Amino acid sequence: MQDAGQRRRRAGGRAGRAQRTGGAVLAQSPWRIPLNTDRPTEPLDEAGVGAVHDGAMRILEEIGIAFLHPGAREVLKKAGCSVTDETVRMGRDFVMEMVAKAPASFTITPRNRDRQVTIGGRNMVFVNVSSPPSYWDITTGKVPGTRARCRDLLKLTQSFNCIHIAGGYPVEPVDVHPSVRHLDILYDKLTLTDKVPHAYSLGAERVEDVMEMVRIAAGRSREAFAATPHMYTNINSTSPLKHDYPMLDGWMRCARAGQALVVTPFTLAGAMAPVTMAGAVALSLAEALSAVALAQAIRPGAPCAFGTFTSNVDMKSGAPAFGTPEYMRATQMAGQMARFYGLPLRASGSCAANVPDGQAMWETSNALWSAVQAGANMVYHAAGWLEGGLIASPEKFVMDCEIIQQIQRYFEPEICATTPDDIAVDAIAEVGGGGHYFGIPHTEARFATAFYQPFLSDWTNYEAWTQKGAVWTPERAHALFRRIVDGFEAPPMDDGIREELEAFVARRKAEGGAPTDF
Amino acid sequence: MQDAGQRRRRAGGRAGRAQRTGGAVLAQSPWRIPLNTDRPTEPLDEAGVGAVHDGAMRILEEIGIAFLHPGAREVLKKAGCSVTDETVRMGRDFVMEMVAKAPASFTITPRNRDRQVTIGGRNMVFVNVSSPPSYWDITTGKVPGTRARCRDLLKLTQSFNCIHIAGGYPVEPVDVHPSVRHLDILYDKLTLTDKVPHAYSLGAERVEDVMEMVRIAAGRSREAFAATPHMYTNINSTSPLKHDYPMLDGWMRCARAGQALVVTPFTLAGAMAPVTMAGAVALSLAEALSAVALAQAIRPGAPCAFGTFTSNVDMKSGAPAFGTPEYMRATQMAGQMARFYGLPLRASGSCAANVPDGQAMWETSNALWSAVQAGANMVYHAAGWLEGGLIASPEKFVMDCEIIQQIQRYFEPEICATTPDDIAVDAIAEVGGGGHYFGIPHTEARFATAFYQPFLSDWTNYEAWTQKGAVWTPERAHALFRRIVDGFEAPPMDDGIREELEAFVARRKAEGGAPTDF
Repeated sequence: MQDAGQRRRRAGGRAGRAQRTGGAVLAQSPWRIPLNTDRPTEPLDEAGVGAVHDGAMRILEEIGIAFLHPGAREVLKKAGCSVTDETVRMGRDFVMEMVAKAPASFTITPRNRDRQVTIGGRNMVFVNVSSPPSYWDITTGKVPGTRARCRDLLKLTQSFNCIHIAGGYPVEPVDVHPSVRHLDILYDKLTLTDKVPHAYSLGAERVEDVMEMVRIAAGRSREAFAATPHMYTNINSTSPLKHDYPMLDGWMRCARAGQALVVTPFTLAGAMAPVTMAGAVALSLAEALSAVALAQAIRPGAPCAFGTFTSNVDMKSGAPAFGTPEYMRATQMAGQMARFYGLPLRASGSCAANVPDGQAMWETSNALWSAVQAGANMVYHAAGWLEGGLIASPEKFVMDCEIIQQIQRYFEPEICATTPDDIAVDAIAEVGGGGHYFGIPHTEARFATAFYQPFLSDWTNYEAWTQKGAVWTPERAHALFRRIVDGFEAPPMDDGIREELEAFVARRKAEGGAPTDF
Repeated sequence: MQDAGQRRRRAGGRAGRAQRTGGAVLAQSPWRIPLNTDRPTEPLDEAGVGAVHDGAMRILEEIGIAFLHPGAREVLKKAGCSVTDETVRMGRDFVMEMVAKAPASFTITPRNRDRQVTIGGRNMVFVNVSSPPSYWDITTGKVPGTRARCRDLLKLTQSFNCIHIAGGYPVEPVDVHPSVRHLDILYDKLTLTDKVPHAYSLGAERVEDVMEMVRIAAGRSREAFAATPHMYTNINSTSPLKHDYPMLDGWMRCARAGQALVVTPFTLAGAMAPVTMAGAVALSLAEALSAVALAQAIRPGAPCAFGTFTSNVDMKSGAPAFGTPEYMRATQMAGQMARFYGLPLRASGSCAANVPDGQAMWETSNALWSAVQAGANMVYHAAGWLEGGLIASPEKFVMDCEIIQQIQRYFEPEICATTPDDIAVDAIAEVGGGGHYFGIPHTEARFATAFYQPFLSDWTNYEAWTQKGAVWTPERAHALFRRIVDGFEAPPMDDGIREELEAFVARRKAEGGAPTDF
């Protein structure tokens, strides 16, 4: 089906090339889609799941959600919902009927079909940090995002095999005018990466332009593009209880165009959501499920994922906190609810730390492991996030990828294999007491691939590490970042496709791009 | 029973005092024994558990373990084991019969009975770093351990409520002669802390002296001391397949004296153990269970815990690695086996990093979360460990305690409560769309205790953090370390007891302490 839609055949060997990308400077694990083999951690019992569900349903039935887009209200009214001014109330039978139409998993195919990802089941894919307005590295400090910095972070996104999706702009390029920013940055993303792309739902032109550019880059006909997801959008509700116009507009356009949909309420307990975590999750679900119902009413079977982004505020300052114990439990509860509704789950890597230090790593580790424990299928902001999402950092990106690659290795079932060769009683008898296992055949046959091999961790002792310059992790990460970017080789793209993309960008710029009055 | 054994009644108010210790400089969670509420992560299926068990039993039956202590061999021979030279082979029926005599959980009561801990069940207690020869802080770099540095780390051990046990020397005080080191450092430990103490099994005198000092400090009669554990020892086998004389000697002395026992083989896959993780775990179990069998043959019902310390070497250098994916899975497998045998589990916090940076935190987070996932009851080296255990660091200690305190908060079931007040539909209706939850009664009533409050994390934004001096985590940790140590107030001790301890130390020093020819 996808072959039929391709207008041009590409030269082969992309997968091999993808494996090699950055190979000289970055000895990493190969591209693959990790399968989460762990049983999820489930803090709620059956009654607890029922209580959160009932809460979400009561919010939708009794309180309602404001849909600020008349077209969305019209769709929902026709589907039988109660509409009063901007507020839409929907009964639980309708919600559950609509949610049941959403697939339990779906596939997104970018221009390089070897980078296809399936969202759902036991799959767990990771996405770069998206949308920080600022950039930080150890040489610049905190500075505004620019196109050049955005390009550097896109190169990291492409280079790391453990990053599967090129999400939102890895840093907001404020030096590019908002009216044409999507054109320039999508051009960069589609030429510097060959991974699944994303469109911001920020006005009709941006969504339509991005869909067209993704179609061109993939070399698909309009029919083939619409037949299966090639990209996705992620919308955030304006918690509490509101979906804004541009988000709904993009959501409905992508639904109609057959592209994938992720809805992620940002429910900060104690600020935009109840101070109680189960209440914050219930609110988040109500907002998300109402968007899923809208998508299903527009296009039954539209691929939708539920995004959880429930955290809490700092009790002292009201500032958002991330990777906290409450954040972890909310993510796990969201995972239970996603399975209850049969929807794929999106979670996030996140931290409140301002620099890539110890705090950044314990907060991010907490967030990433809670995504594992929740059975999350897609982890946004998995690499590069600092300062509660206000800063993108290349050092943090590289450091996070070391954690993510370890998570991927952690899932490999061979670590826990228990065949007689693994239990190794014969080898134990051979070595006996007081000997060692270096160099025996059982070790030699397995040594090269037996253990995780880091690209950033330094496992030498203190004296050897000192002789190498006593370099702390962020400095090592910075050096690796520079080597990756300096040695970067863009994935191949057909010249004709590149010219078509360039022509599209030029034409749309000449037409003025997108309005900036939103 | 314990009251009867107390020769002196102490003035009350210790618990209150303990809560306040360091309160001015350290706003931390109260002392408590965390209950791990999560279902363990179990990578092995039933057949896998059976295969590892069978491997361990075959090692004990067919290969045997060298017991380098004639007294230990005698006990085991009398119990029916086959003894050839130094090698003891034991049948699985005997092993399982002995292991079944060990209690599933046991209690250790230090001199302050409010600091009593139970090892087993869902309890999870944390222990300071033990035994590094070197010390590192940001002002000294790597330097030898000294008594002064050891005292500083003991003050941290006492001050942090999330550390439950004062394990081995938090750094080896190499400026104190080995013959009297145990006397000086146990005096320091017993006067600077009131938590469960530990004895090294390094020769008869050391174990006997420490038991006597712990008895004196607790104000117990000899009978009361022997009636219930007041301390414990931890022994390491000399993998592969060997128990050394001094370790066995201390093990048997503590068993006879009714004190608690932890056996922890250090099975580094690819070096002292098979390169395959299940094989390394099977070897570890064989070594540990043989020591448990010995203890049970000596004193049926002796309180024993199985310690897991299975990690892997670096494929490039052969150096030990910690907090790796393989380490995590080995810890989880060990947890499954501990439950299979009905023994409490000891695990560890650990890392290979040389300084308290990002790598240190992701490795330690991996180790600590795998202890949670394994259902570990006791976590050694939980705070302060660097360089694979060769360095103790006060900054790392403080940073690790922030993670541990978060783990403790993570276990609190109220985070995931789902009563109608928690689902909060009324509050959601009250706030409606576009409002916020600051200041409403539902928030006000819960705000002060709703969320985890860190003592080290900085959650302010980049600009506020910069105004405060842009202090990275290790520097913040160092400042807190200094404040804790400078403001430290030792827990109360009866003057008579202190004098008795001092007299004991003086007498044993006059007698020459312990021989140093081992």
